[in-house]
Amino acid sequence: MIAKVSVLAALTATLSAVNAQTFHRLGTCPTLGCILPPDQQDFLPGQYFDLRFEVHAPVNGSEAFNKGVPDEKFTGTITKDGGSPKNIADYFKVSEPQLEKWTFSWYEDLFARDAKNKTIVNAASKIYRRIALNEPGTYKIKLNYYSNKTTEATWVVRPIAKTKKAKNIIFFIGDGMTTNMITAARLLAHKSINGKYQTKFALDQMPVIGHQMTHSIDSFITDSANSASALYSGHKSTVNAMGVYVDSSPDSFDDPKVETIVEIITRLWGSAWGAVSTAFMADATPIALATHTRTRGMYGPLIDQMLNGVTNYTWTKMNGPDVFFGGGAEQFLPGSGSYQGKDYYDAFAKKGYTVSLNKTSLLKADDSKKALGIFCTGNLPVWLDRNIFPDNLKKLKNDPSGNKSAALDLPGLKEMTLKAIDVLHKRGGDKGFFLMSEAASIDKQMHALDYSRALGDLMELDDTLKATIEKLEKIGELNNTLIVVSADHGHGFDVFGNADTKYLAAQKDDRKKRDAVGVYANSGLSGYQMEQPGISYNTGANFPVNWDPRYAIAPGFGANPDHRENYRVNKSPRVPAVDGLPGFGKDNYFVNPADNTDGFIVNGTLPTEEAQGVHSLTDVPVYARGPCSDLFQGTYNNIDIFYKMAECFGLGQPSHGTGNGTSPGCKKH
Amino acid sequence: MIAKVSVLAALTATLSAVNAQTFHRLGTCPTLGCILPPDQQDFLPGQYFDLRFEVHAPVNGSEAFNKGVPDEKFTGTITKDGGSPKNIADYFKVSEPQLEKWTFSWYEDLFARDAKNKTIVNAASKIYRRIALNEPGTYKIKLNYYSNKTTEATWVVRPIAKTKKAKNIIFFIGDGMTTNMITAARLLAHKSINGKYQTKFALDQMPVIGHQMTHSIDSFITDSANSASALYSGHKSTVNAMGVYVDSSPDSFDDPKVETIVEIITRLWGSAWGAVSTAFMADATPIALATHTRTRGMYGPLIDQMLNGVTNYTWTKMNGPDVFFGGGAEQFLPGSGSYQGKDYYDAFAKKGYTVSLNKTSLLKADDSKKALGIFCTGNLPVWLDRNIFPDNLKKLKNDPSGNKSAALDLPGLKEMTLKAIDVLHKRGGDKGFFLMSEAASIDKQMHALDYSRALGDLMELDDTLKATIEKLEKIGELNNTLIVVSADHGHGFDVFGNADTKYLAAQKDDRKKRDAVGVYANSGLSGYQMEQPGISYNTGANFPVNWDPRYAIAPGFGANPDHRENYRVNKSPRVPAVDGLPGFGKDNYFVNPADNTDGFIVNGTLPTEEAQGVHSLTDVPVYARGPCSDLFQGTYNNIDIFYKMAECFGLGQPSHGTGNGTSPGCKKH
Repeated sequence: MIAKVSVLAALTATLSAVNAQTFHRLGTCPTLGCILPPDQQDFLPGQYFDLRFEVHAPVNGSEAFNKGVPDEKFTGTITKDGGSPKNIADYFKVSEPQLEKWTFSWYEDLFARDAKNKTIVNAASKIYRRIALNEPGTYKIKLNYYSNKTTEATWVVRPIAKTKKAKNIIFFIGDGMTTNMITAARLLAHKSINGKYQTKFALDQMPVIGHQMTHSIDSFITDSANSASALYSGHKSTVNAMGVYVDSSPDSFDDPKVETIVEIITRLWGSAWGAVSTAFMADATPIALATHTRTRGMYGPLIDQMLNGVTNYTWTKMNGPDVFFGGGAEQFLPGSGSYQGKDYYDAFAKKGYTVSLNKTSLLKADDSKKALGIFCTGNLPVWLDRNIFPDNLKKLKNDPSGNKSAALDLPGLKEMTLKAIDVLHKRGGDKGFFLMSEAASIDKQMHALDYSRALGDLMELDDTLKATIEKLEKIGELNNTLIVVSADHGHGFDVFGNADTKYLAAQKDDRKKRDAVGVYANSGLSGYQMEQPGISYNTGANFPVNWDPRYAIAPGFGANPDHRENYRVNKSPRVPAVDGLPGFGKDNYFVNPADNTDGFIVNGTLPTEEAQGVHSLTDVPVYARGPCSDLFQGTYNNIDIFYKMAECFGLGQPSHGTGNGTSPGCKKH
Repeated sequence: MIAKVSVLAALTATLSAVNAQTFHRLGTCPTLGCILPPDQQDFLPGQYFDLRFEVHAPVNGSEAFNKGVPDEKFTGTITKDGGSPKNIADYFKVSEPQLEKWTFSWYEDLFARDAKNKTIVNAASKIYRRIALNEPGTYKIKLNYYSNKTTEATWVVRPIAKTKKAKNIIFFIGDGMTTNMITAARLLAHKSINGKYQTKFALDQMPVIGHQMTHSIDSFITDSANSASALYSGHKSTVNAMGVYVDSSPDSFDDPKVETIVEIITRLWGSAWGAVSTAFMADATPIALATHTRTRGMYGPLIDQMLNGVTNYTWTKMNGPDVFFGGGAEQFLPGSGSYQGKDYYDAFAKKGYTVSLNKTSLLKADDSKKALGIFCTGNLPVWLDRNIFPDNLKKLKNDPSGNKSAALDLPGLKEMTLKAIDVLHKRGGDKGFFLMSEAASIDKQMHALDYSRALGDLMELDDTLKATIEKLEKIGELNNTLIVVSADHGHGFDVFGNADTKYLAAQKDDRKKRDAVGVYANSGLSGYQMEQPGISYNTGANFPVNWDPRYAIAPGFGANPDHRENYRVNKSPRVPAVDGLPGFGKDNYFVNPADNTDGFIVNGTLPTEEAQGVHSLTDVPVYARGPCSDLFQGTYNNIDIFYKMAECFGLGQPSHGTGNGTSPGCKKH
């Protein structure tokens, strides 16, 4: 959610560092000398990255050292596979960088925060930019500082194939989507007779399943920025960061970068690539494909970086995606939301893009040209509102032209994805393409505890997958295309029974209302697949025949703010908790008095400053079909998805390319 | 849980029938004419089953019909693959059964229940016992009743291999175990450096993952009885039932049966088989392997059926398992808990079993003999109490001899499973074996919201899997053995952050206590893998180095009774909610005043008569390795696990055997 992100971004600015748990000095650096990328990181042969050293001198607090004066004479070495250590600049044939210095602060724990007792840290640092390790093997990095201290990091450059096994990759991301949600959506969307489903999700027909671990590099709960980054670059990062390892400096754009899959295929081959999302396009999952920052909330600058590439440092040269479809007109309309107030519709058009602001225009756009499609401000309205409660769309002032009218000629994920395939197939030609297509509001609506809207968008993702397979078959690309469907993280969510919504509403007492819930045998069958006279949505297979049955599912959340539950579909989007009730101050969320007024109150388990549900720990499922799909079996880290895709695309190349990228500044060692 | 089960069993007696949701007339029978097995069921060629017809005449209520007089002249036919219909008795070459009649009642909804407004139904019925369909294909069953009404069922006899691909199958069941729990247990049990785990669960190294749907035949939330039955027989059933389709008659043992995998391998080949569980052995998951009832709470009779086979009707002849290890001495000691008050230690011994009542005796038992091991009354104490809080064991009066002392010489799941393999390997010889090994208290402790104990038992399951693979390798059986690890259902559970338990305890206000929770970046790293001076459990890899860290995980449940949360490990087993508080009557559970006294209150989402958490909907993971493991990829129904195991074991045989079973009463058609 936009509001949420800004809060997190602001927190990051002051609390970017970590030690033990609730707060960190710097998450990847338990000692006073930091190597970024840190110990245990993996690399693709030839993948560009930046290497930063930091030396910390805490002025006060439990780690106070050297009177707060950081060692400026630190030195670093690199040693390959038991060879002899070499100086970093020599090894990578780059000049020795300038020393940088800054100060940052953090709280050591919650008691310190309550007492406003900050720990101040002075730092000295150097960064070696756009370097690469071309040969597979093990590398040891050593940082020597304070004359007798050392920090070591062991890196592995993985052996990865150099030949393509798949021409194209389509990577679907159900943001926040868990196995639990797929199970629940199936119960709503498909009819079961005596325990056997009569129709199936496309997901349920995928031949290969794996599980990926989603945790951040320095916290076990991720956000969508650093998990997207892990999936796209093979490098884990920190909450709110993407395409970088987070350093402790104040600048959001100077952190050490890692090259992403679309940057690599652009540099190596000039393949086509695109991003489709039901979120605003500066949101983490689409924007992380080709941008680098530790502050995901920098929406305007990130859209500029997406179009023009990294401009503050030498980096892989990028000229924007071939396809970029979604919401978020705020960063394109000239004004406060756009970078330097510029008109980015115009900037994209000047670079040769077709620009579509509605579905009609999108479907007509020339497939041979780069394509921008921005269909509204903010996130795209969800499937449920577009298909079941369309009156909700009319209340919005989200037209992408900025004219404050309602955007009504909207594509869904399916239309955007099918059009993206047309453009990418045409533009990629023999070089193939990479497409990321995101069902963003599974996550966004789970945050709002609005599970009907979340599950509706999950069904839309599945419907899009089905249509994608049919389309690829039709254009003769199905056997050339690896399709991967996964998520970036989960939300604690599961269904535990049904609720007789009529009985619940009729009871006066909160405890008596809970008696409406039927568990075990009394959960019965899915009310969502029982025909109801007078209700016909014409939404076809893969969707409920009744979204508001008397016997509704009763789901619960892993974590939630205070809220009121009646288990019925929300006829307009849900706001479970509200802030600023008289007498309770700011950042103190209570039950929204206007939400589910006939329900019972469930008090929260989250800090009372949280307005919404939060992400969870669970591994998320990975579904695959097509070339290399066998690679996706078993249990693995989220970064492994990148290496599996790289293997399938044959990206194990030294860092020079035949595409439109620049040659590397360093040679093969 | 035992207490819970009894309540469910009692409910079933009066409310065995179903219609729409909260209550059913008869779950598999939406019309007034019932075929059991109902429409859409699958069969293994040659698998024995019973076929029941019922005709219902509701006396009152929304379905009142024919003045409450059921048609006694109903007729049934069977038609194979478009052939001509045949009378049931003729087709199966059995005599026409006697007509049966009974009356049952049910509530149509919660309003009817509150008003005590029962619907009475009279039923007429016939049952054709121990029949089989030997040839793969599609069969249509038609019931004609009330002169012009018909109910139809389509059955499929699946084509299944007749040759063995695996000599042995070991089926591990983590009762209630979800992917979310495995993720959480990994965070506690394995050390991670910069986002990369340094050691791994054996589960995380299994090559194949699938997902299975766990729902019952007539409700979307299952219990462990009918899900075990689906896994073992390929036939879904109803909550509290196993090895049968539930009819509406009052008798718990007359329902139409289906043959289970161990009955089939016994009949066909005389292979060895066994059950190991950390539950009491009359509990659903172990007992469902070879028993048939719709009331799981009939513990005494079920232990008799396990030893002596079905005695009230002609059925596959069984002579008891080769291995039977777990808890539940109540059903073996002569007295109120055992069938007809008999001594079942003695009954097993008379049939040639070695009887072990402690670990020392178990390890010494003769591998060539059938083995009974009963190590305590009730469930086995959990891993956490056996290894970290052993003082809790001393407080118990659970010695299996019934002498009211504490059982202290206890095996764990690993010791029981390894011994079971020794016995089964010896006794199965060339005929191979089937072993089910259950980590029962993952479920039992999740019911109690005691996630530390649940996760400890999950770690023990993984440790047992690891030791099993090593053992099979050592005895030369690894490549002959299909290993499957799965669950029977889930519990809504996920971790959403950490909790600073010190800060939480120091706050006075419930809302302020919630502020101790750190989400996203503030979840930090796992406190369970940070060495703490003075703490050393010597439990080795796969387990935490500190079970009570200051920064603990903060998990939430899909559904829970009122309870108080402080996120610390419970030093003694948890009772989250209690009944009978003064002034609040019975079946009205509130926060246990003695539980987590420094925590904050989380009010429940369940009916207030529920003392514990309940099962959830989510698909559960399936892990496989060894011969046929590829069959376990993708998403499928729980019954498919049976057919995949049957395929691997070559069980697609007509119903006669070379083992110690009887020949079939019917011939091949």
